[in-house]
Amino acid sequence: MTPKIIRTIAVLRKEIAAFRMSDPSNSSVGFVPTMGYLHEGHASLLRRSASDNGLTVLSIFVNPIQFGPGEDLDKYPRNETRDIQVAAEAGADIVFLPEVKEMYPRQRVTNVTVTDVTERLCGASRPGHFDGVATVVTKLFNIVQPNRAYFGMKDAQQIAVISNMVQDLNIPVEIIPCPIVREEDGLALSSRNVYLTSEERKQALVLSRSLSHVADWMQEGITAIELVQRLKAEINGVSLADIDYAEVLTYPDLSPTDTNRPLIKVEKELLIAVAVRFGKTRLIDNRLLNPAEVGAEVCFAK
Amino acid sequence: MTPKIIRTIAVLRKEIAAFRMSDPSNSSVGFVPTMGYLHEGHASLLRRSASDNGLTVLSIFVNPIQFGPGEDLDKYPRNETRDIQVAAEAGADIVFLPEVKEMYPRQRVTNVTVTDVTERLCGASRPGHFDGVATVVTKLFNIVQPNRAYFGMKDAQQIAVISNMVQDLNIPVEIIPCPIVREEDGLALSSRNVYLTSEERKQALVLSRSLSHVADWMQEGITAIELVQRLKAEINGVSLADIDYAEVLTYPDLSPTDTNRPLIKVEKELLIAVAVRFGKTRLIDNRLLNPAEVGAEVCFAK
Repeated sequence: MTPKIIRTIAVLRKEIAAFRMSDPSNSSVGFVPTMGYLHEGHASLLRRSASDNGLTVLSIFVNPIQFGPGEDLDKYPRNETRDIQVAAEAGADIVFLPEVKEMYPRQRVTNVTVTDVTERLCGASRPGHFDGVATVVTKLFNIVQPNRAYFGMKDAQQIAVISNMVQDLNIPVEIIPCPIVREEDGLALSSRNVYLTSEERKQALVLSRSLSHVADWMQEGITAIELVQRLKAEINGVSLADIDYAEVLTYPDLSPTDTNRPLIKVEKELLIAVAVRFGKTRLIDNRLLNPAEVGAEVCFAK
Repeated sequence: MTPKIIRTIAVLRKEIAAFRMSDPSNSSVGFVPTMGYLHEGHASLLRRSASDNGLTVLSIFVNPIQFGPGEDLDKYPRNETRDIQVAAEAGADIVFLPEVKEMYPRQRVTNVTVTDVTERLCGASRPGHFDGVATVVTKLFNIVQPNRAYFGMKDAQQIAVISNMVQDLNIPVEIIPCPIVREEDGLALSSRNVYLTSEERKQALVLSRSLSHVADWMQEGITAIELVQRLKAEINGVSLADIDYAEVLTYPDLSPTDTNRPLIKVEKELLIAVAVRFGKTRLIDNRLLNPAEVGAEVCFAK
């Protein structure tokens, strides 16, 4: 079924209110906020939302305030027609497509800021980025008032930021993290993958490949420092890679681990995350691992 | 009727949801956030809410994050029993009385900040104050999800901050500013008035008295600078007054006016606001004037 295309906040609110009034006992709203140029990762979020909720709202908004100077705001890829087709096939009921003027009609004086979990990883290399994310997601949550919102784990730090924000501000929404969707050869899906030349595309496989060794390496008893060294060595083994970061942090609080302790003995979930530039394109990928489970595999193998 | 006393967010949400389900077509919720020690000003907000809405929620929470170091957090006056009685008489249906641990259960990493309208008046003399206000009001709005929220114009800058925040973050609530309530002798009601000695209480009348001359002075064609001089001279005429600020700003954007132009010719609403310390007690008061209306009175008088 073709979703409704809505471009204004007022019409969107009216539409959602009408849905909620139609059957108040079965009126849960699922929400998938995106910047468009949809791929199978987005589609997986939409399908999950459509199966969980009576109404699924997709937003497509390339949010200017989360881009820094010199970042790819102007050339961020867009394809509204194809996006609407993907949304329809994945079960979206409403596609919200606001213009910048609709979301930011005047000089904004309010910001939502999240500290601590924003200090490392992408927060360190993209200053202000997560304030822009937190602010626009707060706005979208206030506009859609969803019961559940779906985010891909590829942006693991974004999920940590939004989960912290939702908890701190008592926003009445359940955040549902969903698995990373990959190409058959392992490349994590991203709208930015279209920027890659064919040689860069080939070399970019080093992100998922290096991360795929992490569980094995941990079983050897290595520390966080050693893990980062191995990741960086493997990534630097391809000629076009320019590493932005490779880090091991506890999840979801995104704190550094004890650097001298074998990772396998850490009693928290670990996020191993990398960001690498290929030419002008910056790619990210990550693995979330529970050392207890990695350890259990060792015992089992023995 | 005695209001329901609720101390946890979960129970409050359940209670409000039940009210909304009971009659979805007539389910508007009015909200009056306060720090307690209620006076007739608060009661006037509650009565207005009770007449506008099907359910009126009063919150009483002395919000630690809006107090600076050395401010009166620890000695802020409290009287829960009397507050509940005032709430009952003024028509509150629910009194929400959370502990600090209920509102801030863990180290908070999220802040709502408002720039620009927070730079002058109380924002200048109480750094961080309005971030604390914006953050707690966002939390309370997310918890109560009111249709309308009621604030007294005595805290005119607070209303400007919250109105800007609601607009920027698309919070689905209508902000209703309500008139300042005064004692018969003119003193604006404030929970902090109980701090005053009887001599301070007497001298504190200089706030409302000096503000009562403003319309007359404007008719003489004075500028903002001259108005501030006259206000300060009158306030300094009482021995115990220690002026924090006396300012003239446009409302609701809180920008300075052209200092060389007669105020009577300014084509915007004007907020004339003062803050004065008496001993350890800091009092505020203000007048909101439309120069066009002041001017019209002059023409009419001729």
